Amino acid sequence: MTLTPLTGVIPPVCTPLTPDREVDVPSLLRLVDHLVAGGVSGLFVLGSTSEAAYLPDRQRRLVVESVAAHVSGQLPVLAGAIDMTTARVLDHVASVTAAGADAVVVTAPFYARTHPAEIARHYRAVAAGSPVPVIAYDLPVAVHTKLPADVVLELAADGVLAGLKDSSGDLAAFRQVLTGARDHQGITGFSVLTGSELIVDAALALGADGTVPGLANVDPHGYVRMDRLCRSGDREEARAEQERLCALFGMVTVGDPARMGPGSSAIGAFKAALHLRGVIDCPATAEPQVPLSPDEVERVGKYLAAAGLL
Amino acid sequence: MTLTPLTGVIPPVCTPLTPDREVDVPSLLRLVDHLVAGGVSGLFVLGSTSEAAYLPDRQRRLVVESVAAHVSGQLPVLAGAIDMTTARVLDHVASVTAAGADAVVVTAPFYARTHPAEIARHYRAVAAGSPVPVIAYDLPVAVHTKLPADVVLELAADGVLAGLKDSSGDLAAFRQVLTGARDHQGITGFSVLTGSELIVDAALALGADGTVPGLANVDPHGYVRMDRLCRSGDREEARAEQERLCALFGMVTVGDPARMGPGSSAIGAFKAALHLRGVIDCPATAEPQVPLSPDEVERVGKYLAAAGLL
Amino acid sequence: MTLTPLTGVIPPVCTPLTPDREVDVPSLLRLVDHLVAGGVSGLFVLGSTSEAAYLPDRQRRLVVESVAAHVSGQLPVLAGAIDMTTARVLDHVASVTAAGADAVVVTAPFYARTHPAEIARHYRAVAAGSPVPVIAYDLPVAVHTKLPADVVLELAADGVLAGLKDSSGDLAAFRQVLTGARDHQGITGFSVLTGSELIVDAALALGADGTVPGLANVDPHGYVRMDRLCRSGDREEARAEQERLCALFGMVTVGDPARMGPGSSAIGAFKAALHLRGVIDCPATAEPQVPLSPDEVERVGKYLAAAGLL
Amino acid sequence: MTLTPLTGVIPPVCTPLTPDREVDVPSLLRLVDHLVAGGVSGLFVLGSTSEAAYLPDRQRRLVVESVAAHVSGQLPVLAGAIDMTTARVLDHVASVTAAGADAVVVTAPFYARTHPAEIARHYRAVAAGSPVPVIAYDLPVAVHTKLPADVVLELAADGVLAGLKDSSGDLAAFRQVLTGARDHQGITGFSVLTGSELIVDAALALGADGTVPGLANVDPHGYVRMDRLCRSGDREEARAEQERLCALFGMVTVGDPARMGPGSSAIGAFKAALHLRGVIDCPATAEPQVPLSPDEVERVGKYLAAAGLL
Repeated sequence: MTLTPLTGVIPPVCTPLTPDREVDVPSLLRLVDHLVAGGVSGLFVLGSTSEAAYLPDRQRRLVVESVAAHVSGQLPVLAGAIDMTTARVLDHVASVTAAGADAVVVTAPFYARTHPAEIARHYRAVAAGSPVPVIAYDLPVAVHTKLPADVVLELAADGVLAGLKDSSGDLAAFRQVLTGARDHQGITGFSVLTGSELIVDAALALGADGTVPGLANVDPHGYVRMDRLCRSGDREEARAEQERLCALFGMVTVGDPARMGPGSSAIGAFKAALHLRGVIDCPATAEPQVPLSPDEVERVGKYLAAAGLL
Repeated sequence: MTLTPLTGVIPPVCTPLTPDREVDVPSLLRLVDHLVAGGVSGLFVLGSTSEAAYLPDRQRRLVVESVAAHVSGQLPVLAGAIDMTTARVLDHVASVTAAGADAVVVTAPFYARTHPAEIARHYRAVAAGSPVPVIAYDLPVAVHTKLPADVVLELAADGVLAGLKDSSGDLAAFRQVLTGARDHQGITGFSVLTGSELIVDAALALGADGTVPGLANVDPHGYVRMDRLCRSGDREEARAEQERLCALFGMVTVGDPARMGPGSSAIGAFKAALHLRGVIDCPATAEPQVPLSPDEVERVGKYLAAAGLL
Repeated sequence: MTLTPLTGVIPPVCTPLTPDREVDVPSLLRLVDHLVAGGVSGLFVLGSTSEAAYLPDRQRRLVVESVAAHVSGQLPVLAGAIDMTTARVLDHVASVTAAGADAVVVTAPFYARTHPAEIARHYRAVAAGSPVPVIAYDLPVAVHTKLPADVVLELAADGVLAGLKDSSGDLAAFRQVLTGARDHQGITGFSVLTGSELIVDAALALGADGTVPGLANVDPHGYVRMDRLCRSGDREEARAEQERLCALFGMVTVGDPARMGPGSSAIGAFKAALHLRGVIDCPATAEPQVPLSPDEVERVGKYLAAAGLL
Repeated sequence: MTLTPLTGVIPPVCTPLTPDREVDVPSLLRLVDHLVAGGVSGLFVLGSTSEAAYLPDRQRRLVVESVAAHVSGQLPVLAGAIDMTTARVLDHVASVTAAGADAVVVTAPFYARTHPAEIARHYRAVAAGSPVPVIAYDLPVAVHTKLPADVVLELAADGVLAGLKDSSGDLAAFRQVLTGARDHQGITGFSVLTGSELIVDAALALGADGTVPGLANVDPHGYVRMDRLCRSGDREEARAEQERLCALFGMVTVGDPARMGPGSSAIGAFKAALHLRGVIDCPATAEPQVPLSPDEVERVGKYLAAAGLL
């Protein structure tokens, strides 16, 4: 099974919760509709922005089942299989593919200290046990290891990896994978995706296939518009659109750093924005994240208004 | 439900695997017998040395069930509930307590970026949902956050935490918890345990209640002897015993750092030693750890011989 | 005294040494001529690529005097004033400006643990004591602190900073300074320079004023050509030129990581390349850097040949 | 030239400043008298607690000259030669030994990224150029590298290093040097000193030769008393004294972390305490440290009062 290279905007889909922290499926499906209406070309569920790290297994499965059934093949559904090491990841792979995922997204091992040789071994074992393509997820802020470009390229050449979702923020290393994959005869159909939502225009100019911006939950039209501007060569307009989205992204800082971590603030802001925009019913985030205060939510609203989204 | 303070040696029990990476229950129970015969006063299953991060849920449960049934209340069984965030940890708490664990051992949130307020919130929610006492596990090398002493003491005073297992290596911070817990009127029965196997004598001299040394899998008698020497005030003999164990601990460096990470080397060495000593049937470690080479295993044997254990 | 925004290529000039580690002034001046012939628009001496951290004060001064006298105002000479804290930096500022520097380049405090408020205080005091404009040098790999964008912008608005040389590799944060400086009414003539030599095309597309690429020592023509292509809107050709330079940059990895650190390898490669190209007399690097082996130097030669530079 | 192993308490001497940030020599000499009266067995000037990172060269020299002349050989004067790399450190070595230092204290290279081979090369070159013994200074919080125990022991065996001042907080690694130095036939007269002021009793119990506690500026008698209690085997009384000093050390947290870094708070508290105790004339700290507020100084006073020092 292979994927043609993924292109366009493939947002990491937020997971709306009810006030008692159950998955709010109707809100989730409304969010999916909102994204599809915005023109996205795929969906990435159970990523970091989806609070995958917070969702117990039954909630993870429910998310994939609900979304896969809802879109029923109209666009690809990628699912995170986020866990510490190989055997645990393989259990998630089995679960999300049974639930309908078209590809899995997998980080380097974490919690356990790791090594490039162990990272390669990990992806080889996961790919051997996965019925769907495996996309590497480079997220040093979460797993505390940067995926080495040479390891990614070796695994791509061996057909182990079908793509890379790079959220490292290191555009020079991203470029190394991009040009390496392009110039290597043995690598075909490999999708190089950026998760760096503030420099999407730059990543596309370097040759990225597609983008996975968390902020696209809030403004999918904006990211889709920028993607099209980039592809049509309207780089100055793309830059202007990106800068508008960068300003909107400022919402992730509304949470008081004396009271909460940056994750609580960012996820809280995205969900508050989706709630204010009427897409989801409740802005609750999963435990142990600290909720935004009413004042902080009000500031999210101002970011939306400034971006013309309210 | 409360624990009187845990004392003595409570080793993090290795998880023997078969060549095809299933839990080798007979070897596990022989290892438990070996530890009990060595004089340990409790067992900690599903810790880092147990490869908890590598074991899928069904294997985790099998470990707890097997050990709890085998010791059937003769000594307390602590079980790690190692996962990223609150709801996922609570699922493990339910599983390991159903399987017979007497207490759960829980880290700060990881993968998700965290904050002291979120750490406190996490432990409060876990304790509220746990039928057994909760012991905090301070392991910055894995979770990339140090548990702040003031947070631990606040949670101890509020009855949220029943103890601390400190594997941070930071003895000054450990002392702050020790003296804080001792001097605070509202804190009773709080167990302060060190996982720093190379400075157990120092930790006990500061007032630690007990110790959780990974190397005690290999030489439980040594750690129990040292514990008794410390308690009886024979500090120079305790120091000599600790230094013998420090030399033995050198085995964790046998793995070639060009070929594997420090975890593969350390866990591989402990399991090779248990295999060489005839305690377990197979030294296999879980994927994606890199196995020791025959030469490296031979060097483990030399460490055992030098310590009088072969 | 103000600078109009610096534009074009302003290489951090290597410091050629004699075999006994004295500054080789004739080679240094030949290198300057090589860079000027390549079309650079300024020179940055005593940067990290210049081994400023390795040069004692008398060598630092000799470098600035020699270069400033040689170019005698034809193009601006920026000089690093690299030291741990305020008073020490001010001594370097006095020394390099007496020697003819047109601007000073200053990092956040290092060695001492620091804080945004202390970073701001540091730059304010340095600027108050400097007869020439002060450019902030963002180099987290060396100083272990990232300059916060809001601090940089506040200092720019207050006239404390005349520019930023960003070698953080974090293009999203770089963009925040770029757009912030552009959109703030109170900020004029502020130079935003990138030191990320592998993504210069991307940085210029975002609006960077100029570039400070270490690799431009080896191939100034390439960087100047790319700069012109970017400015004339030939983005695809600029990208091709950048990719050629990225391949050339591979030379920084020739040093065996078992035998030396990445700095020894990178500086050693640049100097070996300059020696092989006949620009400098001796490829020696300062102590305690480990020299490249003959084999490693030969590999540098292959990189040069592949890039058409030998 | 060799040192017999240094023993007892060798405080890193604070550097009193005048309100305009000049070295206040009369206060410095009163501080030295205060320390000598407290029973210290040596003095370490130009360490981190001395604000060496903040003092320009002429102030550094003045400190050494003043102190060396004042004690005129009654007790050894160690001086930091704190700089980034070899040649710069050698300039400081020349300066402080000309000013009368009996030994120099030198960190691993910093700012430049380093490697164990480069660290060894650094110490070999420094020792070759130093007329006095060289003591390694392990201070990862400042230089962002931990001195590997095997490198320290190799350099000790080769006569390159005369001692180690360990401020890493890693007591297990400290023990490795201690026992390695003790058991190696080729190592004689090597001084193993701890800078971890909160676990001095533990370090001495492990066999440390002496201690370098910053807090001994404030309470030299306390550290000298504890040192004597440890040596005479009164370990419980030593522990009680250490715990009293740990409580006193709490003063380092008085500074508001929203307003300053931990260094400003700690150095500010030590100097405020010395000022409140009447030892120095002015509590000023060097730029760009943020001064304590009057309220914060008042809290320092409460720590002194609680410890019976006001």
